[in-house]
Amino acid sequence: MKNILIVGAGRSSGVLVDYMLDQAAEHSWKIILAERDPDLVAAKIHGHAHGEAVVFDINDAARKRELISKADIVISMLPARYHWRLVDDCLEGKKHLVTASYQKSLYRIDQEADKHPDVQEREAWERLDATAREQGVLLISEMGLDPGIDHMSAMQMIDKIRANGGNLTSFKSFTGGLVAPGFDNNPWQYKLTWNPRNVVLAGQGTAQYIKNGRYKYIPYHKLFDRLEAVSIPGYGKYEGYPNRDSLSYRKIYGLEKIPTIFRGTLRKPGFCQAWNLLVQLGLTDDSYKLEDSANMTYREFVNTFLVYTRHKKVEEKVCRYLNIREDSPEFAKLQWLGLFDDKKIGLPDASPAQILQQLLEQKWKLEANDKDMIVMQHQFDYNLDGLKKRLHASLVVTGDDQIRTAMAKMVGLPVGIVSKLILNGTIRETGMHTPVLPSIYEPVLQELASFNIDFIEEDLSVEPEAV
Amino acid sequence: MKNILIVGAGRSSGVLVDYMLDQAAEHSWKIILAERDPDLVAAKIHGHAHGEAVVFDINDAARKRELISKADIVISMLPARYHWRLVDDCLEGKKHLVTASYQKSLYRIDQEADKHPDVQEREAWERLDATAREQGVLLISEMGLDPGIDHMSAMQMIDKIRANGGNLTSFKSFTGGLVAPGFDNNPWQYKLTWNPRNVVLAGQGTAQYIKNGRYKYIPYHKLFDRLEAVSIPGYGKYEGYPNRDSLSYRKIYGLEKIPTIFRGTLRKPGFCQAWNLLVQLGLTDDSYKLEDSANMTYREFVNTFLVYTRHKKVEEKVCRYLNIREDSPEFAKLQWLGLFDDKKIGLPDASPAQILQQLLEQKWKLEANDKDMIVMQHQFDYNLDGLKKRLHASLVVTGDDQIRTAMAKMVGLPVGIVSKLILNGTIRETGMHTPVLPSIYEPVLQELASFNIDFIEEDLSVEPEAV
Repeated sequence: MKNILIVGAGRSSGVLVDYMLDQAAEHSWKIILAERDPDLVAAKIHGHAHGEAVVFDINDAARKRELISKADIVISMLPARYHWRLVDDCLEGKKHLVTASYQKSLYRIDQEADKHPDVQEREAWERLDATAREQGVLLISEMGLDPGIDHMSAMQMIDKIRANGGNLTSFKSFTGGLVAPGFDNNPWQYKLTWNPRNVVLAGQGTAQYIKNGRYKYIPYHKLFDRLEAVSIPGYGKYEGYPNRDSLSYRKIYGLEKIPTIFRGTLRKPGFCQAWNLLVQLGLTDDSYKLEDSANMTYREFVNTFLVYTRHKKVEEKVCRYLNIREDSPEFAKLQWLGLFDDKKIGLPDASPAQILQQLLEQKWKLEANDKDMIVMQHQFDYNLDGLKKRLHASLVVTGDDQIRTAMAKMVGLPVGIVSKLILNGTIRETGMHTPVLPSIYEPVLQELASFNIDFIEEDLSVEPEAV
Repeated sequence: MKNILIVGAGRSSGVLVDYMLDQAAEHSWKIILAERDPDLVAAKIHGHAHGEAVVFDINDAARKRELISKADIVISMLPARYHWRLVDDCLEGKKHLVTASYQKSLYRIDQEADKHPDVQEREAWERLDATAREQGVLLISEMGLDPGIDHMSAMQMIDKIRANGGNLTSFKSFTGGLVAPGFDNNPWQYKLTWNPRNVVLAGQGTAQYIKNGRYKYIPYHKLFDRLEAVSIPGYGKYEGYPNRDSLSYRKIYGLEKIPTIFRGTLRKPGFCQAWNLLVQLGLTDDSYKLEDSANMTYREFVNTFLVYTRHKKVEEKVCRYLNIREDSPEFAKLQWLGLFDDKKIGLPDASPAQILQQLLEQKWKLEANDKDMIVMQHQFDYNLDGLKKRLHASLVVTGDDQIRTAMAKMVGLPVGIVSKLILNGTIRETGMHTPVLPSIYEPVLQELASFNIDFIEEDLSVEPEAV
């Protein structure tokens, strides 16, 4: 009997827990789900013979150590900021650790210290990696969707192109968490399928990428105006706005010299143009609180961002300020949100972003029968045997229901699969890893395909005479 | 003999030290100037019979205590972040403390603690105020230009309007640190007369004010597009862009119910329109470093913010992106800065703001004979005896030379004057104060006038029949 400790029973752990429980008898596993909320943990284990529900607070150090000491593998589904609190006990007890979060969530660096944060981060990484190797332990992170499936699928294709002698000149990658066709029945063709706060704050900071050897930096207030058109076979047209940090993916994927690298987020056409209006007005700002936000109406809220006038309508002022027409589709999107309604906000001491979030949570609510959808596309340009080649690889995954959402499946399944592969000895790496090694991504992607999480490849190479 | 301890001999302390030395014999003062840099402290005291140059490091706690224990009053001209390190010894030794910085520099609150920062701040303030009163000590801050002269002059006029039975409906206040007429000989009519980094980063965050009872919030990317026209008697037209936090001045000035309050920064007309282009491009961003900034040219730097194209000129792309013409005055300002030059930046690991700052430090350099100028205007609207009244009060101060700059005079003189008034018993307040009390601002403003730091008032009230 092997003990699998899963810490945290939040939203995206359902698919994972079911995946483990479903195979527990076959593999002689016991699934110990440890979570602060007694109801949540009981519901997820639902009396399964191979499951054990443990009420556990991460602050209870003795209990943490005890739980980890009894496990054969530890899976952290806690919010990312808590992962590091499991690492020492895992290393000491020689237990593998799996998370879906960014690798840097495994350590904390002291911002007060004199050393440059980059140096501290490298040192912290090296220390953990060395200790894990000494102890024969694998600490694997970024096993979710993004980061996770994006890494695995991209690396598999990059490695294949290189193995065939191809030389990559451009890699673009787009991901979108959306609502499935048929359920995208509002003017934005968008609903909230994941953390609403992250949706409102998305893109803040400066987007950085490189195109044909030229660095490109886009400030937030220009971001939603600098779009790439993307076409997904069978699903039509999308638009991608640049993600914050595409440059760091050169190192992750071993593409240090690539002339073009770009990562973007997908939305339906027209979304970004309208969202840009919210950004221009200042409605996504989370850096200050509005005075008396509770008693303000949404209409008054919008008016706080506009020039003072005695007689002009708010609608008229918005259009003039943003240089749009009142009969335009983008203005219709603002209006549909209820931004011009004389309705009280009722949210005290709130930032513009919090007020907008509250509104979007009502308007972009996923209804009971709605299904979410994840769309991903990698675009590769490369030279092979003197020819210019272009390959697009696209993935579309739709949720089964509101529990087995596309998002929950694409986070939970890779975590579950990699855990099984570690337990059964297929994956034997030690140290700090993300799934960019063939020994990790090959077997994980293979099993993901059996869940219909599989890319469709299109060869879009231009014929040589047309170059 | 009274001992006056001045800690810190940086740029703006020259006028202060001279003011104190000049009157030292008359008042039997000894001026002890304590500063880390031996050359600086020696130069400022220049062997004056009533002066003593002390080489002192703020980290030397024993020496700090000893110096303060011998003083009758302590003046901190250190950078604001160091003031709090003098407070405990001043309180214990019953020594008054004078600074030109914001009051909150007198205490530090622990951001890690569980309490809301506002509560912590209020408690820290109350604790200091109570202790100072117990000890019979005055801790006075905001005795410079802005904050300082702005408070004193505004409060004097506000108190006068109220004393006459007037009811304030609008208070707007503008300040600008500029180059004096005749020396403003570049297309921007601007040179760097103070901290260049602050000039580059000015306005970041969100401007907040209130107009006719309506809150107004302006995000940074719209700030330099939302200007107020200001006219200074004898000096012509200026434009004011909104400061970050006008709302907090309602409490400071006891104007909690005023329908309109606005604070702005003055520039010559046309400056803001051109500066806005730099903001739109993203050149003032200080949140990330550019890769390989040292080897990049200024032209390439600008190009990193523009859409990739194979054949278009950078100038053409800028104009299209920002919707301006190549023959416009705002484009000429960008060109004059050298932003399109094929000249190496040579600054490694730099943020856009740092690169821009380096360029501005060359182009907007104050020449040896240039003089700086401070311009301030308060605008009051009030109702009196059923009539609508309007009062403008304007101040223009020009530097004598590059040592006795307008800025140095307007920081150093109020600090010196208030210190004298405390020592000679004219000011007898104890506790935490800024100069908003008549007992403080009246005598300080009176002496400032003898240095030609004096406001010109204009009654711009509309005649009753024209209302």
